[in-house]
Amino acid sequence: MDLRPGERLDDLGRSGLRIIQHPGRFPFAIDAVLLAHFVRVRRSDRIIDFGTGTGIIPLLLGALHPTVRVTGVEIQPESAEMAARSVALNELSHRISVDCGDHRDAPVRYGQGSFDVVTMNPPYREAFRGKVSPLVARAAARHETTGTLAEALQAASKVLRHRGILSVVFLAERLVDLAYQLRTYRLEPKRLRLIHSRLDKPANLVLVEAVKGGRSGLATLPPLAVYEAPGVYSPEMREIYGGLLNDGESP
Amino acid sequence: MDLRPGERLDDLGRSGLRIIQHPGRFPFAIDAVLLAHFVRVRRSDRIIDFGTGTGIIPLLLGALHPTVRVTGVEIQPESAEMAARSVALNELSHRISVDCGDHRDAPVRYGQGSFDVVTMNPPYREAFRGKVSPLVARAAARHETTGTLAEALQAASKVLRHRGILSVVFLAERLVDLAYQLRTYRLEPKRLRLIHSRLDKPANLVLVEAVKGGRSGLATLPPLAVYEAPGVYSPEMREIYGGLLNDGESP
Repeated sequence: MDLRPGERLDDLGRSGLRIIQHPGRFPFAIDAVLLAHFVRVRRSDRIIDFGTGTGIIPLLLGALHPTVRVTGVEIQPESAEMAARSVALNELSHRISVDCGDHRDAPVRYGQGSFDVVTMNPPYREAFRGKVSPLVARAAARHETTGTLAEALQAASKVLRHRGILSVVFLAERLVDLAYQLRTYRLEPKRLRLIHSRLDKPANLVLVEAVKGGRSGLATLPPLAVYEAPGVYSPEMREIYGGLLNDGESP
Repeated sequence: MDLRPGERLDDLGRSGLRIIQHPGRFPFAIDAVLLAHFVRVRRSDRIIDFGTGTGIIPLLLGALHPTVRVTGVEIQPESAEMAARSVALNELSHRISVDCGDHRDAPVRYGQGSFDVVTMNPPYREAFRGKVSPLVARAAARHETTGTLAEALQAASKVLRHRGILSVVFLAERLVDLAYQLRTYRLEPKRLRLIHSRLDKPANLVLVEAVKGGRSGLATLPPLAVYEAPGVYSPEMREIYGGLLNDGESP
């Protein structure tokens, strides 16, 4: 096993899937897991994950869908390198690749219209709003320091084929920003799901699937509750999380 | 009592509130009742209801908030006249007025910035999409035959004071159209609630409160379920509907 100092190996609770993480960097969180389960893919889809971090979304998609090919793009070399080692560790290198680079360059690097699906779990706070973490990796994952939402959506629109799909998880409080920018870049929201900590609480996150060049018309799915009572995950979350729930730290 | 042939008098279940309706025209529906309960008003607010129909929203707002003043605007003379008779019947003429006219002319007729709150329950289908009812009143209430959503929002933005509020109920499937157009007219969505027939079903309707000149940032409220089991209203709906639930036809 090729773990570096400070790194740890977390079990993803799915047929032995494991991921290398580092507590000082940005560990994967519930949003990435929810997004991986929200994405609808077809068996031969080419998927690209923008800002893949330590590779949680490519790893989960690769495990959930045994025939898709996934490319993860990550601008921070250390995270990209950890993601690549996790892919190798899980013997998924034939279907998952991790490239170090800027997702905004994806249309040039991979070609316009070269993917069927884009996934992204973008930074949630606008740059220079709120406190910026002193740790660069955390800051980049939480704030728009490596490009704006608009830049990411523009790149996604270009790298997708006509009728290709963007799946994104975002803060519910920024839903209007997201919807407005998606339409601006001809990515029409077609499927939406709100995530509530509990059904009697405001929504925290939103999952959106948009279709490049799609017509107006949105399906709003039933809400997803994370908890059904204090400290008790909802049945759907237990199903999604599987073995992850035994890991007290990651989710 | 001043009922015309074919008209009927429906009890609104709130301190004797009653409304004149006509089965051949467009009776008020659940969306208007939900909107009237969603609107947040302050005690001296001046409210205008676009496309007020038979006056259900002004009547409910007038009953729920005993100090507000409400103006209803309705382009169809017959509906406006029925609404005015319902206002008189309920002895609310000192606080509610109904004017026959085009809501798009409201900024000119009443003056720019002259209202604190705009409510609207706009036609749900775009003009020339889907079947258009042969009955003119029903067609106008269901389709954008008396102006587009964009025209209504533009007029709302002009007639509202700075930081004034627009409250709207709309089809959930057109949420993106609504959010996009609201922002286009500087009406920033600040509060949103999805209405589901049941919580395990897709959303049917969406309630949105937007603030003129507001900053980006949305509160997404807990979802509202109409039913908790087949044929059984949810506790919240029973509270909202009150005596209306005894009327088998209107809601």
